[in-house]
Amino acid sequence: MKLKFDPIGIIHSPFKRKEDINTLGFSSATGFDEVEGEIEIFKKYEKGLKDIEGFSHLIIIFLFHKMGDYYLHVKPYLDKELRGVFSTRHPKRPNKIGFTIVKLLERNKNILKVKGIDMLNGSPVLDIKPYTHRDKKENIKIGWLEGLLNKY
Amino acid sequence: MKLKFDPIGIIHSPFKRKEDINTLGFSSATGFDEVEGEIEIFKKYEKGLKDIEGFSHLIIIFLFHKMGDYYLHVKPYLDKELRGVFSTRHPKRPNKIGFTIVKLLERNKNILKVKGIDMLNGSPVLDIKPYTHRDKKENIKIGWLEGLLNKY
Repeated sequence: MKLKFDPIGIIHSPFKRKEDINTLGFSSATGFDEVEGEIEIFKKYEKGLKDIEGFSHLIIIFLFHKMGDYYLHVKPYLDKELRGVFSTRHPKRPNKIGFTIVKLLERNKNILKVKGIDMLNGSPVLDIKPYTHRDKKENIKIGWLEGLLNKY
Repeated sequence: MKLKFDPIGIIHSPFKRKEDINTLGFSSATGFDEVEGEIEIFKKYEKGLKDIEGFSHLIIIFLFHKMGDYYLHVKPYLDKELRGVFSTRHPKRPNKIGFTIVKLLERNKNILKVKGIDMLNGSPVLDIKPYTHRDKKENIKIGWLEGLLNKY
């Protein structure tokens, strides 16, 4: 079963190369929070942005477009063990789908100025959704990542 | 630009028809929290689940496979206004991508038993990611949804 998708927009980010992102790293919980960028929604979809200004945070679903093959076991940044790729946010994953929650600073027509960018410049955007209270979970456990965070 | 995706699994849910889900509704923040179901990851990808047991919550990216055309303006459940589709979680959206955070109860090989199911039975799964502290945002504003929540 093959599913086909069409990007609705594109990410404008200060990260031009994969190496620029690795240095900030996944385990750095707040490393990307101050990084600003723009999400350009193609004109064809601009009407779909109505009312979005009222939300402070947006869920961005995008493509890790510079990734080649995926691996089922990957070594996360700073970690020493191989982990199942679905237990990580590693980009070398089946379907190469990325997920980031950004802070919406400003909307100017089809351009969303946002903070919290950790995507590569030129990443295709697949969907945007409003972040709501339902997405805030309590009493969370974070498995292997717990030990890593304690370490650094 | 057409992107192609291959599902990594399938949702087993008590919701057999679209109508079963509408009655719980989007604005009901906790309506789905107790709904149990299973996420079956295809055997080919089972290795990618290593270490996932350590996480309490998982991000599920899936397909609204029973949806036809999308609309750029949609009327959310219980709302009286038309909203931009990207300001809503409405399923009739470009690329038909769904996003739900579930609670992981148990893993049995390639089957994840979870709580918080709001997907239709048979929905194709595109990706699974661990939910971490970075996904909990503070001081959030929820625009048009605020008024609706106050009302009901």
